[in-house]
Amino acid sequence: MDARDFRAWGHRLVDWIADYLENVEQYPVLSPVSPGEIRERLPKYAPELPESFEQIFTDFQKHLLPGITHWQSPNFYAFFPANNSYPSILGELLAAGLGVQGMLWQTSPTCTELETHVLDWLVNLLGLPEKFLSCSTGGGVIQDTASSATLCAVVAAREQASSGFTGQLGACPRLTAYASTEAHSSVEKALRIAGLGTASLRRIPVDKSLALRPEELERAIQTDRRNGFYPFLIVATLGTTSTLAFDPLRPIGDIARRYHLWLHVDAAMAGTAAICPEFRFFHDGLEFADSYCFNPHKWMGVNFDCDCFYVADRQALIRALRMVPDYLRNPASESGQVIDYRDWQIPLGRRFRALKLWFVLRAFGAEGIRSLVRRHIALARQFADWLQQDPRFEIVAPVTLNLVCFRLRGDDSLNQQFLQRLNATGSIYLSHTRVHDRFTLRFCVGNLRTQEHHVHQAWQLIHRVADSLVKR
Amino acid sequence: MDARDFRAWGHRLVDWIADYLENVEQYPVLSPVSPGEIRERLPKYAPELPESFEQIFTDFQKHLLPGITHWQSPNFYAFFPANNSYPSILGELLAAGLGVQGMLWQTSPTCTELETHVLDWLVNLLGLPEKFLSCSTGGGVIQDTASSATLCAVVAAREQASSGFTGQLGACPRLTAYASTEAHSSVEKALRIAGLGTASLRRIPVDKSLALRPEELERAIQTDRRNGFYPFLIVATLGTTSTLAFDPLRPIGDIARRYHLWLHVDAAMAGTAAICPEFRFFHDGLEFADSYCFNPHKWMGVNFDCDCFYVADRQALIRALRMVPDYLRNPASESGQVIDYRDWQIPLGRRFRALKLWFVLRAFGAEGIRSLVRRHIALARQFADWLQQDPRFEIVAPVTLNLVCFRLRGDDSLNQQFLQRLNATGSIYLSHTRVHDRFTLRFCVGNLRTQEHHVHQAWQLIHRVADSLVKR
Repeated sequence: MDARDFRAWGHRLVDWIADYLENVEQYPVLSPVSPGEIRERLPKYAPELPESFEQIFTDFQKHLLPGITHWQSPNFYAFFPANNSYPSILGELLAAGLGVQGMLWQTSPTCTELETHVLDWLVNLLGLPEKFLSCSTGGGVIQDTASSATLCAVVAAREQASSGFTGQLGACPRLTAYASTEAHSSVEKALRIAGLGTASLRRIPVDKSLALRPEELERAIQTDRRNGFYPFLIVATLGTTSTLAFDPLRPIGDIARRYHLWLHVDAAMAGTAAICPEFRFFHDGLEFADSYCFNPHKWMGVNFDCDCFYVADRQALIRALRMVPDYLRNPASESGQVIDYRDWQIPLGRRFRALKLWFVLRAFGAEGIRSLVRRHIALARQFADWLQQDPRFEIVAPVTLNLVCFRLRGDDSLNQQFLQRLNATGSIYLSHTRVHDRFTLRFCVGNLRTQEHHVHQAWQLIHRVADSLVKR
Repeated sequence: MDARDFRAWGHRLVDWIADYLENVEQYPVLSPVSPGEIRERLPKYAPELPESFEQIFTDFQKHLLPGITHWQSPNFYAFFPANNSYPSILGELLAAGLGVQGMLWQTSPTCTELETHVLDWLVNLLGLPEKFLSCSTGGGVIQDTASSATLCAVVAAREQASSGFTGQLGACPRLTAYASTEAHSSVEKALRIAGLGTASLRRIPVDKSLALRPEELERAIQTDRRNGFYPFLIVATLGTTSTLAFDPLRPIGDIARRYHLWLHVDAAMAGTAAICPEFRFFHDGLEFADSYCFNPHKWMGVNFDCDCFYVADRQALIRALRMVPDYLRNPASESGQVIDYRDWQIPLGRRFRALKLWFVLRAFGAEGIRSLVRRHIALARQFADWLQQDPRFEIVAPVTLNLVCFRLRGDDSLNQQFLQRLNATGSIYLSHTRVHDRFTLRFCVGNLRTQEHHVHQAWQLIHRVADSLVKR
């Protein structure tokens, strides 16, 4: 493919994407294909000779598109949103065209400096503590996901806990970490990867609203200390994956400070809502946090992957992750005047992800993002109101922002059948969870394209499918 | 930005990228900006109101472009190549437009199945062992980088070594891993992240060609066993970062088998060369490997990030990384008929990276990639020939594929000055390493656009700058 072909095909793909996104409602949201169905359509071996892009793109449309689950559909209410947006797609395109590596400042200064800059912008936009600014002791970095951010927090906290304590890892296998029973699975995964094992995680009970109970946290820490364990990390969640429950940060932070534990705060989806002053309440107590993350790739219209991870003390992170082989040494790094983000993350190489974030923040403006968040939250509340008017439904967790957890009054199998029938229509995609050990449907409003009429249609469909299962 | 704006700007960016790549030689390869220079040009706060893309893109060209180091320049010979290519950029664009998540098979079946499929294609193209095929006990997955692949290998190997051994992590802090003194820093970084610490890594001496010495490896394992350590992992490198040295896989594999250690093989850049039968020699003994990775994002024209990671026994990997919270359960996963790649990697979420790999393999064809590899290797050898004809230079490591490590006869400071002068011209970018404890220049030929006249110009420049430092 030469430059001329690239121009022609680039234009065609841009137009195809615009058409796709304008008409994405016409596809079944959840792909209906069976396991193996896509692979069966593909030739067993790679071609020896070049093929035309005409043929390749025809195959994409014919053989691959049927196996796509349409995350960009306005009728996608499953999991959490993973929005793209037009400016963000352009950001990915331009980053791909430039093809630079941001492992060191020197390997593309703009890649590092723009990242530092927009992460500082976000500190201001979300009202985060000033210690997360790059001009302080801390700073921000883009990670691929909140899972990786949690792993970075675990290794930084472990480094801090073990140095000056035993001086050597492996000698303190009795480190213990704390998170609520509702915390994301990535907390346990990070502890396992870090070699601390599942047993190091203390799952703290939650209250009726599914938020961590601080008094239980303190009790667990005290018990562990008495038994010779070494508590080192608390992970608080602002907006759990299951029900969007908010752990009370202020009392948790107070405990973290009194007992000298690292406090990591995971606000993966909900963090974006802090751009609206009226929804910033959940950040109360964030000044206690040693690290914090949220995902613009969820609710801010920035293509996956883009998780913003902040630390209060960058040295703790760098000590845990820094490696300086000879082939990466350079005068800029040794001057101490630059940030080398390879020391702030698990991998060495890194893409130019700040570009899409910069495009989105400028093309939307803070007000544009605020109005998006406000619309989604209003729509979720509207949906909850409709549910509440029908006694066959129950809402099983507080509707604080844009997630509604609900179920039909009845047993789990009824609700499983309900979900299965809804998703099989292709008109809507919801996911599920277990709340108080009962099968529960999740309705998360977060797609850029979701308007009131979509939520209304969803409600009508839900109502109709409920009719087929339960008498009014 | 609406769909109309997106079409217009998408077309403009596609054309800009084509112009950029056609004229990338006109920029200084290494950005000449000083630390902080880019940030100074940017406003301190994000805008409250939306800005026009005209303004944003003008700012990009005016304020950001000067801070780009041009990895796509044909005159880029530093580190390793990180090629993009036209089909790959289109793959990134389309993946961004679709905006799907591949964490579970269900969340976009095509995303998973195409990945499995093209990774099987590569097993055939590179002549990898059949146990890495998805129809066997193993299989392949796309990771972001070789660093993450190594970390996955470490946790899988640790899981295998500890189960049935102590049953509990933390109880076996005496696990030891083995890699050559020339192995990539990511091996030590992975061991540190995994909580085993730097002390767990035994750095095995190398021979004159900078390849691991198997007899030293065996001796180290025996010594550790005698002293109550538990050897669990060998990382062999096929093409070290520093000098592209190849560890002898067959004797290493034999040791791994006899002592029951997990063998991970890192072929990050060099792996691509195995697509040419005449360069596949370094894979001899690969049937002993438990895991293997190489990076199409280096030398295969696939945009970063795209590391292909293979395991011989997928269950070992899944046991180490699998977490099944209620909100991710689904009938397809529970049927056992599908792959859920979140269990094969550190993060949960994942982009649709298989698309760009599929585009490249089809648009280039195997023959297209082979001719690229052959051209680069021939050019590196040509460059080495020129060097050898000038007695002021010495080549300090074998030129096996596309990397030439050389220096001026003289001390380190002379060579540092030499490199600094070369890179300051902006006409060329080389990086450096230390070989036998001496400062050494690295000349790696791997950019898609690098033709004979570029290498010839590079040689002329090198010759000229040498003249300014050392008499003929």
